[in-house]
Amino acid sequence: MAQQERAVRTRRAVLEAAATVFAEHGYTAATIADILKTAGVTKGALYFHFDSKEALARGVLEIQADGRVPEQEIKLQEVVDVTMTVAHRLVHDPVLRAGARLSADPIGRGHYGSAWPLWVDVLTEIVAESHRRGETLSHVVPREVAELVVSAFNGVQLYAQLETNLADVEHRVSVLMQHLLPSIASPAVLMRLDVAEDRGARLVREAGLVPASA
Amino acid sequence: MAQQERAVRTRRAVLEAAATVFAEHGYTAATIADILKTAGVTKGALYFHFDSKEALARGVLEIQADGRVPEQEIKLQEVVDVTMTVAHRLVHDPVLRAGARLSADPIGRGHYGSAWPLWVDVLTEIVAESHRRGETLSHVVPREVAELVVSAFNGVQLYAQLETNLADVEHRVSVLMQHLLPSIASPAVLMRLDVAEDRGARLVREAGLVPASA
Repeated sequence: MAQQERAVRTRRAVLEAAATVFAEHGYTAATIADILKTAGVTKGALYFHFDSKEALARGVLEIQADGRVPEQEIKLQEVVDVTMTVAHRLVHDPVLRAGARLSADPIGRGHYGSAWPLWVDVLTEIVAESHRRGETLSHVVPREVAELVVSAFNGVQLYAQLETNLADVEHRVSVLMQHLLPSIASPAVLMRLDVAEDRGARLVREAGLVPASA
Repeated sequence: MAQQERAVRTRRAVLEAAATVFAEHGYTAATIADILKTAGVTKGALYFHFDSKEALARGVLEIQADGRVPEQEIKLQEVVDVTMTVAHRLVHDPVLRAGARLSADPIGRGHYGSAWPLWVDVLTEIVAESHRRGETLSHVVPREVAELVVSAFNGVQLYAQLETNLADVEHRVSVLMQHLLPSIASPAVLMRLDVAEDRGARLVREAGLVPASA
């Protein structure tokens, strides 16, 4: 049992080290040697869990797609909350940054795939439930909205990376959501949504949301 | 004179070849040898105009930022028109695809910069004029809107690349604009905007817009 627990911890440590290296150097330039050095584990321990750089990238993409947010009275608030917590975690958590960088890499993603479909699934489910509850405008198509939010979010975080090294990513994502929501939410729901730029930070702190890498 | 004209044509041919190679392989994997082969010019001719791969990338970014669209009665329509013609040209013009790919490359852009600030300038000017004319909602900040449109557009085209190899990029950009404009345009202006997904194709055809690479 203790052995199994240790294996889980080692696997996690390796994935976090891989995320740090991928986030910093990108997939192509990252080496297993760098990842080993960052993880502080033996080559044997790493290869016990992952047999290639590709497998490491896939493992990072799996653990970063963690869309858990506290349940809210207005379901649509949870769409905002997913985007705002991810924006907040991007600044602090290499696992999220690696997911974003790996997914935007046109060479790498031929090998290991992309985080975007995972996030689209997470958001489609929330928007669909919000739609069933009558919170959205009637023309809303949940998957279309989910794809729009994921793709626009990703453009905004890439831009924030370039302009401010992510320092204002939470502000920019808040602006994005403020512009998208009037064509998604019914007016009565719209005015009750909290899209403040510190929403992600508050949720992570107050609701005790544990980042994927903790 | 004829000689000068030939030099301009050669420079253009080299930049188009570079764009084709950058769009296909990315900055890091692209080689001057590939670009020479695609351009069909001598090494001397290429180096007369560009002394490095970096200079080629900068040249491509300069020529792709071509935001000319026909003047419209409603100025805000021109914002739609820039996004929809770029979406259309992305499918057909490697110069645009190279601009998008080079700008999203976190390693390369440390060397040659990014197309995004150029596009933000193009759009800021149009939104500012639209704002002066009273077409926008009063809270609109032109540069903020321009940055939002450029960054979200870029996320959407990256997503379309991954999902459909750009086959539905015009549809997706049209959906994006339909979702953004209600929080930018005044209602009376909003209902008169044309955001149909074939808007870019029509403009390029009917208005005789010449793509940057022609």
